[in-house]
Amino acid sequence: MQSLYLAGLDIGGTKVAATISDINGPLARITEPTAKTGTERALGEQGIRLLKEACAKASVNFDSIDTVGVSSCGPFIKQDNLISLVAPNICGGINEHSDLPNRWKSVPLESVLREQFGTVVIENDCVSALAAERAFGALQQADNCAYVTWSTGIGFGLCVDGRLLRGKNGNAGHAGHMLMSEDSRAQCGCGNFGDVEAMISGRNLETQFGHSSAELFNAARAGDSKAKAIADESAKWFGRALFNVTAVLDIGQFVIGGSVWQHHGDWLLPQVMQEIETRLPALTSGVTLLNPGLEAYVADIGALYLVMSHDWLDAWRKRQAWHQFDRLPVHESQ
Amino acid sequence: MQSLYLAGLDIGGTKVAATISDINGPLARITEPTAKTGTERALGEQGIRLLKEACAKASVNFDSIDTVGVSSCGPFIKQDNLISLVAPNICGGINEHSDLPNRWKSVPLESVLREQFGTVVIENDCVSALAAERAFGALQQADNCAYVTWSTGIGFGLCVDGRLLRGKNGNAGHAGHMLMSEDSRAQCGCGNFGDVEAMISGRNLETQFGHSSAELFNAARAGDSKAKAIADESAKWFGRALFNVTAVLDIGQFVIGGSVWQHHGDWLLPQVMQEIETRLPALTSGVTLLNPGLEAYVADIGALYLVMSHDWLDAWRKRQAWHQFDRLPVHESQ
Repeated sequence: MQSLYLAGLDIGGTKVAATISDINGPLARITEPTAKTGTERALGEQGIRLLKEACAKASVNFDSIDTVGVSSCGPFIKQDNLISLVAPNICGGINEHSDLPNRWKSVPLESVLREQFGTVVIENDCVSALAAERAFGALQQADNCAYVTWSTGIGFGLCVDGRLLRGKNGNAGHAGHMLMSEDSRAQCGCGNFGDVEAMISGRNLETQFGHSSAELFNAARAGDSKAKAIADESAKWFGRALFNVTAVLDIGQFVIGGSVWQHHGDWLLPQVMQEIETRLPALTSGVTLLNPGLEAYVADIGALYLVMSHDWLDAWRKRQAWHQFDRLPVHESQ
Repeated sequence: MQSLYLAGLDIGGTKVAATISDINGPLARITEPTAKTGTERALGEQGIRLLKEACAKASVNFDSIDTVGVSSCGPFIKQDNLISLVAPNICGGINEHSDLPNRWKSVPLESVLREQFGTVVIENDCVSALAAERAFGALQQADNCAYVTWSTGIGFGLCVDGRLLRGKNGNAGHAGHMLMSEDSRAQCGCGNFGDVEAMISGRNLETQFGHSSAELFNAARAGDSKAKAIADESAKWFGRALFNVTAVLDIGQFVIGGSVWQHHGDWLLPQVMQEIETRLPALTSGVTLLNPGLEAYVADIGALYLVMSHDWLDAWRKRQAWHQFDRLPVHESQ
């Protein structure tokens, strides 16, 4: 039998969110800026501490919790077969020019969490978002599908033949690093020139336009010709990236999340589809782009989903328990 | 209990091979040029006829055979949920400029074979080659791996988390059609400009060099500067394609087959690895390129593997039954 409570962690480059849930839905959620100082253990210890605080808010005995699902930014590596993060926006020791306040080469997330919890399941945040969309959102009947985020970076979660893809270190889905342009002088945080993320991530669009990517797309929609040219190029590259992933995996449905698509997907869609539909009909015919069924809390929901039993799944579906995230009080750790 | 005999078909753009096997290994194999005239049913009917002939050679009662595994060139589409081929080198009706002697839009392979056989399993030829390499060849312990062929075209079979990838129509692995160069004027048979196959397939290398790709690589190795420049470019693009697939799927091992690699892989390897190893160490570190463990008959072996029981697998492994293909008499259908 599954225990009465489950823990979920959503670990991003900016903040960490900790949720405690029972079979009827989330009970408490606490957030805090991501730990980036101290020893490499700091992030795992922060996760445990925030879960303890969430338990206190929910009047749940922390020691009764044995299982945590984790949705985390990557990439991952395995050390003694346990997942560590080598995320460039957390680990200051990966890149010698980093301005992060630490020199961490990697963060031993799974080993620290395992000191506290019997069961620890960690997935890349786009993989857990995809899991959540398949369980509760826009991809409930989809066996060959992907979750794509287009915001500061570009990330993918992938599902083929009804199974989420993980890969040798849990890094399947780093399709934002596909090399696509021979000439591009745009450099990615990973060092690549001309990969998808280098060319069209929010960060890069900002560099090209000189203002935020939100301002870029608003100006493009209002007819500004420089903005329009950059926005058109970004739609082209995004469409070609989705075509490439379709060619590699024979995907049928893409859910597109992230701030760029959320605000401008309606306007970008025709140009993006043009890059897909004009190629290889045996693979692209019927490919559809969908809006997310879950919104802001998709990674938190995904983290819990990773460790849910079928009973919980049924109960969550019956009550549409994921909507309760919207009604939880916002707690920031003190 | 599995029947005493299994049938295998290897369907390529040039020839079809039909094999009859028992638990101890293949008994007879017959080949014939691929049927390209008559009705759309011709190819499926040819497969059945060749299997009948193979049964006659092996003194096996054809009517006792209920199961066929098929390794076929693609792409596939599904019609009434059954696989049909839309292969450009078989179906003359796909492209109006085709010089093929038919106007077929598609070939109803599965439905015709199902009129004869109770069990029909059809996979893309690179997928079945990968299955064979995982069962009997160079990838026996590999859970995140790919089979890549670099010859007239460029094809991939993909395995992630220990499972072969198929996709919505069985077309996963068409990574040869990934768009990679923005400027390339090289056009692929599929219509794309600047995809991997357009730039480095044997067919395209021949066009660039004016002689066969075998002559190209021999000249490059002998120091011819024009040949060397083309060969270097091809190694670069091949390496970048393998990097992209690694980024998308977190693959660990690639087996490279096909005539280009078979003859020149030793010489191309350093340049190809350079394109992989210099990027994203969390994904690329430890990625290895291997030679095939099985040779000429990998697709025939794969076709049979698709329908083998565990008993057969054990027996084939014990006897290394795949080597018997080398000893079968060569029968061409009369």
